[in-house]
Amino acid sequence: MLKIGDKEFKSRLFTGTGKFSDNATMKAALEASESELVTVALKRVDTDNEDDDILRHLGHERINLLPNTSGVRDAKEAVFVAQLAREALGTNWVKLEIHPDPKYLMPDPIETLKATEELAKLGFIVLPYIHADPVLCKRLEDAGTSAVMPLGAPIGSNRGLRTQDFLEIIVEQSNVPVVVDAGIGAPSDAAKAMELGADAVLVNTAIAVSPNPVEMGVAFKMAVEAGRMAYEAKLAQAKNFAEASSPLTGFLDEL
Amino acid sequence: MLKIGDKEFKSRLFTGTGKFSDNATMKAALEASESELVTVALKRVDTDNEDDDILRHLGHERINLLPNTSGVRDAKEAVFVAQLAREALGTNWVKLEIHPDPKYLMPDPIETLKATEELAKLGFIVLPYIHADPVLCKRLEDAGTSAVMPLGAPIGSNRGLRTQDFLEIIVEQSNVPVVVDAGIGAPSDAAKAMELGADAVLVNTAIAVSPNPVEMGVAFKMAVEAGRMAYEAKLAQAKNFAEASSPLTGFLDEL
Amino acid sequence: MLKIGDKEFKSRLFTGTGKFSDNATMKAALEASESELVTVALKRVDTDNEDDDILRHLGHERINLLPNTSGVRDAKEAVFVAQLAREALGTNWVKLEIHPDPKYLMPDPIETLKATEELAKLGFIVLPYIHADPVLCKRLEDAGTSAVMPLGAPIGSNRGLRTQDFLEIIVEQSNVPVVVDAGIGAPSDAAKAMELGADAVLVNTAIAVSPNPVEMGVAFKMAVEAGRMAYEAKLAQAKNFAEASSPLTGFLDEL
Amino acid sequence: MLKIGDKEFKSRLFTGTGKFSDNATMKAALEASESELVTVALKRVDTDNEDDDILRHLGHERINLLPNTSGVRDAKEAVFVAQLAREALGTNWVKLEIHPDPKYLMPDPIETLKATEELAKLGFIVLPYIHADPVLCKRLEDAGTSAVMPLGAPIGSNRGLRTQDFLEIIVEQSNVPVVVDAGIGAPSDAAKAMELGADAVLVNTAIAVSPNPVEMGVAFKMAVEAGRMAYEAKLAQAKNFAEASSPLTGFLDEL
Repeated sequence: MLKIGDKEFKSRLFTGTGKFSDNATMKAALEASESELVTVALKRVDTDNEDDDILRHLGHERINLLPNTSGVRDAKEAVFVAQLAREALGTNWVKLEIHPDPKYLMPDPIETLKATEELAKLGFIVLPYIHADPVLCKRLEDAGTSAVMPLGAPIGSNRGLRTQDFLEIIVEQSNVPVVVDAGIGAPSDAAKAMELGADAVLVNTAIAVSPNPVEMGVAFKMAVEAGRMAYEAKLAQAKNFAEASSPLTGFLDEL
Repeated sequence: MLKIGDKEFKSRLFTGTGKFSDNATMKAALEASESELVTVALKRVDTDNEDDDILRHLGHERINLLPNTSGVRDAKEAVFVAQLAREALGTNWVKLEIHPDPKYLMPDPIETLKATEELAKLGFIVLPYIHADPVLCKRLEDAGTSAVMPLGAPIGSNRGLRTQDFLEIIVEQSNVPVVVDAGIGAPSDAAKAMELGADAVLVNTAIAVSPNPVEMGVAFKMAVEAGRMAYEAKLAQAKNFAEASSPLTGFLDEL
Repeated sequence: MLKIGDKEFKSRLFTGTGKFSDNATMKAALEASESELVTVALKRVDTDNEDDDILRHLGHERINLLPNTSGVRDAKEAVFVAQLAREALGTNWVKLEIHPDPKYLMPDPIETLKATEELAKLGFIVLPYIHADPVLCKRLEDAGTSAVMPLGAPIGSNRGLRTQDFLEIIVEQSNVPVVVDAGIGAPSDAAKAMELGADAVLVNTAIAVSPNPVEMGVAFKMAVEAGRMAYEAKLAQAKNFAEASSPLTGFLDEL
Repeated sequence: MLKIGDKEFKSRLFTGTGKFSDNATMKAALEASESELVTVALKRVDTDNEDDDILRHLGHERINLLPNTSGVRDAKEAVFVAQLAREALGTNWVKLEIHPDPKYLMPDPIETLKATEELAKLGFIVLPYIHADPVLCKRLEDAGTSAVMPLGAPIGSNRGLRTQDFLEIIVEQSNVPVVVDAGIGAPSDAAKAMELGADAVLVNTAIAVSPNPVEMGVAFKMAVEAGRMAYEAKLAQAKNFAEASSPLTGFLDEL
């Protein structure tokens, strides 16, 4: 079973709360997905209101909240927001997102490493969103990260696993769980990430913007399970030559 | 529900019987996959023996046999084998496979069209294995085919959907079910085929040669369902720009 | 040197005459490309007019005309047009294009084979535009074709070599020159086709619709030469592991 | 014309000196490539010997040396080696390569940024080899880098432009020249890098390990020029629909 920090997860599908048309749809889709870890931007939480609407919709006992630092531009801001989130939501889990560039939202490797170091020292369970950079992943391990979240493609692009070559190296080398984040646009992408050995995937946009988020949540759930099962059962390698599935030669000659 | 000829299928995963280590494993994997249509090379059936072993292992009530013509080199041989199969197995279904080239097993478009015409006239339910050729698919329709089975990649290569550009055109234009056959090496490939609108997939090698064919059968079953559900729920398009899943700008400024 | 029928070609870049903004630009671009074989739709030729404008612009001594049958829907029409072209233009060369579907312009394998047989008997040098179907290529050889022209991607799509897996098989098996036609959108695509062993490429749209067709003609010329040279010099294989270009270990230890 | 630091380059093909079978072949291939910037591992230079063999083979007046720090594991070692190289070779140019991992040779973003800052302050012209990380590129600019050298694929893998999605973002955002380094296995890859707007490419393995390094050097030279010319002339976009190059409808109806 997947374990991050001190928690065990039956589901390897992590989800997000952005871009849904409304909170009721979000709630229904996330429950259908059976996701146990759901990221939420601290900004969206009304920290002064005990009955905050988004939190009320995430109240399912299966769901663990993963506050993210979306909107911060450097390590200092990230640490501050993580502390706010800990106080407001009562969790020491944090998804680090530090992207100074508002157009492509690519993560900053330097500030992310710095923030990971600090937050780990402060007792946080840190899951940093990063480029699919194998060396950065190892340095984050040294800094005390609890998982790494390399991107598959630019956030929200739905382009799938454009970083596959590097994800394979990361999976091979990692001592912490690898969660593929960003770019996963279809269940087949999620299945592929699991097939190549990722420990989990985080999907948000592809579920939220589908015309049928609930069905799409189920589709991703099944695809993640299928991909994981295939990884465990082991796939055959791609071949350079065709090979007959059925016996071939001289069939009629033998009749 | 998928309908081919006069039969309805709950499962959109068709399977094959080649390359399994033994018949008991084959039986277990095919049952686990919940496949309802299973292709078998006529050559492997001992037509003189009522207790033929491979058939006995395919005796599950859910399973319909789809005899294939693997090993024939032209339309004449194919028609002959289809007739033998009808007599031996009591089914008018036939998977046409005409590949004169023993190395790459690529199908012959000319002989396949000719055999389809003849077999349709003879009352067969014909499912021809073909290159992903959109015009050939339309001509097979005119000739009375019951489905088309374009390849994803060379047989047994496990390379996935290398013909995607053409499968999309075929799906858009087809009036008969489209079954993607050959090349599907992983559940993610099967899911992708379904996402782009295929009516079913045929998987053999990837299940049969896995170290754990039973688990792999289940993985494909789930992936096919996931891909079909995503197709029905509708996927978002791939985008050229990243888009934040979480709200972005000016977070800290507002605190 | 490339030989098709009885002609030898220094240039392995074949070109087309469609979509240029005007004839003067076309003339300049084709001359800059140093192309020696230029396809032209018979329809565009004013067969009653000796001073037909498009032909006047193709009058360079290096240029051989390759009339095409664009617009025909079956073998009968194709043979008729080829004969018209022979009379009007005084050449027995013909590029067969039979695409009944006006949307995707995918070629018809059955009619193309039929027309090739007839035209070869009638003494034509036939270059058929086809899907990247290895078995069809072999049958066209048997029918007397002088070359095969498999597509890289749908005409005008500029998507590059989407049929690479099949082009490789075609190149390996072919006894006549292989000319990759359609889909080549950039000089890098043309270079890649040559690297994998194509004998020539045909490029039209990518040159004609560029804002600078003359420069683009030169760029394609160089790319085709580069790709061919690399094919002859032999490329190294793609590897699964990184390998240092520079010596690595223990550098400082040795100082 | 490409300008890096205070030097102008006619050639946009940078090369390396590793893996050649012998120095004479290296010399011939590099001269044939017309490369003006050639990277050499300091370790390979015999700094005590004025007649060092490798240097003597790089003595062509067109060639500028670019010593690299291959073999170092952190910023401190890199700065030290850069200083040694400056003294030994009389150049303040340096290609930063810091890869602690001996298997995949992926570069370290943190140490590379640190070394770039220091070396820029010490008056070096720094060209850092990095992952295709758009944010890191911007930070290197702030640190005073003279160019960025993002990788296309793991070093020596010959897999081509696996990082294309990210190279496009880097090219769009960069204020310093972008040199694609590593992974370029064929002239078509080099052409593609140039087409998408890279300022130059660095090629080593693909030339050095070819059975014909001299011809391969020429092939890369032409491909780089072709790709650059296409970039300047502007390519058409890939399209989702086929479009006829030749006029289509109703041809025979009009006859």
